[in-house]
Amino acid sequence: MNRSILSTLQLVVQAVFLSMVLQPICEHLLHAQDPLPSWRESESKKAILKFVERVTATGTEDFVPPEHRIAVFDNDGTLWSEQPMYVQMAFVLDRAKLLAKDRPELLEKKSIRAIVDGDRSYLSQMTESELVELVVETHANMSTDEFEKIVKDWIATAKHPVYQRSYTECVYVPMVELLAYLRAKQFKTFIVSGGGIDFMRPWVESVYGIPSEQVIGSQGKLRYELRDSVPTIMRLPGIDFVDDKGGKPVGIQRHIGRRPILAFGNSDGDYEMLEYVTAGKGPTLGLLLHHTDGTREAAYDRESHFGRLSRGLDDATKKGWQIIDMQRDWGQVFRFQR
Amino acid sequence: MNRSILSTLQLVVQAVFLSMVLQPICEHLLHAQDPLPSWRESESKKAILKFVERVTATGTEDFVPPEHRIAVFDNDGTLWSEQPMYVQMAFVLDRAKLLAKDRPELLEKKSIRAIVDGDRSYLSQMTESELVELVVETHANMSTDEFEKIVKDWIATAKHPVYQRSYTECVYVPMVELLAYLRAKQFKTFIVSGGGIDFMRPWVESVYGIPSEQVIGSQGKLRYELRDSVPTIMRLPGIDFVDDKGGKPVGIQRHIGRRPILAFGNSDGDYEMLEYVTAGKGPTLGLLLHHTDGTREAAYDRESHFGRLSRGLDDATKKGWQIIDMQRDWGQVFRFQR
Repeated sequence: MNRSILSTLQLVVQAVFLSMVLQPICEHLLHAQDPLPSWRESESKKAILKFVERVTATGTEDFVPPEHRIAVFDNDGTLWSEQPMYVQMAFVLDRAKLLAKDRPELLEKKSIRAIVDGDRSYLSQMTESELVELVVETHANMSTDEFEKIVKDWIATAKHPVYQRSYTECVYVPMVELLAYLRAKQFKTFIVSGGGIDFMRPWVESVYGIPSEQVIGSQGKLRYELRDSVPTIMRLPGIDFVDDKGGKPVGIQRHIGRRPILAFGNSDGDYEMLEYVTAGKGPTLGLLLHHTDGTREAAYDRESHFGRLSRGLDDATKKGWQIIDMQRDWGQVFRFQR
Repeated sequence: MNRSILSTLQLVVQAVFLSMVLQPICEHLLHAQDPLPSWRESESKKAILKFVERVTATGTEDFVPPEHRIAVFDNDGTLWSEQPMYVQMAFVLDRAKLLAKDRPELLEKKSIRAIVDGDRSYLSQMTESELVELVVETHANMSTDEFEKIVKDWIATAKHPVYQRSYTECVYVPMVELLAYLRAKQFKTFIVSGGGIDFMRPWVESVYGIPSEQVIGSQGKLRYELRDSVPTIMRLPGIDFVDDKGGKPVGIQRHIGRRPILAFGNSDGDYEMLEYVTAGKGPTLGLLLHHTDGTREAAYDRESHFGRLSRGLDDATKKGWQIIDMQRDWGQVFRFQR
């Protein structure tokens, strides 16, 4: 036999060995490990594991092929903390202060004056047009490359006001585990957030393992142009799309183009997303994180200014959605809390 | 030794064998195969292979990590034939005829009357508002699920007027090979087309291996609603986004959020996409397919109604873009031509 045939033979023998001996060992070792170690052994964890096993077991009626294993996650209050305020709001405040230093004329705007003065009562009563003005001032009239750098620099240094840790440390360990577990089971994981899409993209890949093309969020208007002969995408002062409430299913259709089989949210802004996903044919799973843990994180729902959850609590049982109770279901919330 | 230790030992021995013997054999077998067999051994093919090797060779200055290996492809005239007219236009004509049968009042619209009568001279002189009216009539006022089914049924039966084959057979073999080759090299391949995003999604995965979430295209307005209590996404009569010319870099930013390193187009509608991509830092590759083969496909460029290529031909050398000459560079165009 020549060398090529010998090599091929060796290959075949190895392939057989691989599938008959090595693979079962690997699978055994894999199963022996708990994929969700920060989750307590509660009904919630069992429901998640059971659903994933159900849709990935080949040869059954409920089997879902990998290309349809789409899982969508809200971000604020679902993957990371949204209290005492949305992180992007903290970014807006920091950014406005910085801009006012360079351009004192901005202090003539009441909202920016209130930010610099730390006037919380004014800020909590801002009109929507003032809020849009603030977002435009801090997010628009620059290139996408410039904005990306601003976000990267800010997120690298800003600290969460309560935990005094960088914001990217204030992500929920059980959720990061769940994302990784789903991907190991050939799910594609997406973020579907009311937050700004380009505010998330610079850091979500390293923190959640979600690439920038799997992020869906609210978007400002964009325009391609040559700026001093350099091909540039400019961020214009105008909102193109709000990815919240009924906008979430629309955002999913725009970006993904097929109905996910798993949706995880935490507020009434996620209601329509869960409703849309769990109305799909075949097995689906809708999950709502209930913030019940005032000791380790924050306890809030129906009355909260950020991440209000009321309709979702009322309808979860009827809709067959799982309520994940942070206090009951999570053994650990943040990495820095041991 | 107990069984568990034995198993682990076996595992280690196998892992060593795997990396030292099996992997080099596999790599050898892989390299021995030509990844682009339908491409002639021309400078164009060499340039593509060289670029891919350059950005995937670890430990070099030009190495691009897999998450940044984004490749974007126009569809009409780049991945499949756009002559004698855009495929989506043929869909519009067929659909309008079908609708007019059910609703004769539609014949009062001059454009639909012209379609039913086969009045090509009227159709070639339609105003933009008539064209939009036609698109609305054939694409909107239905759910996304309904539209998906209509496209699937149509593409399964419609025939290309010249080749008398289904349209999905009229894709270019060399391009399908290139897409697969890039994915084998850990590129993510995207479509960035002026065509309707939801017209492509139902069939591109099986034909090109590109999942629906990696399709970017023109989009109509959408609205989420409960239709008879059923969660539904409705296609509204209005254009939300035109993914052509300067819209292509914007579409890329909206969906992907980072600059691709390879762009492949064929018309002046792709000019800005190539310009944007090849202005990126680090190695980039811009490619334009020049339709030079009147025998096997169609020969057209500066004067064509569909897929006009003029500016791109003028500036390709200056911009460093590769012109792929169909006649010169492709050994085979369609699968059905041997």
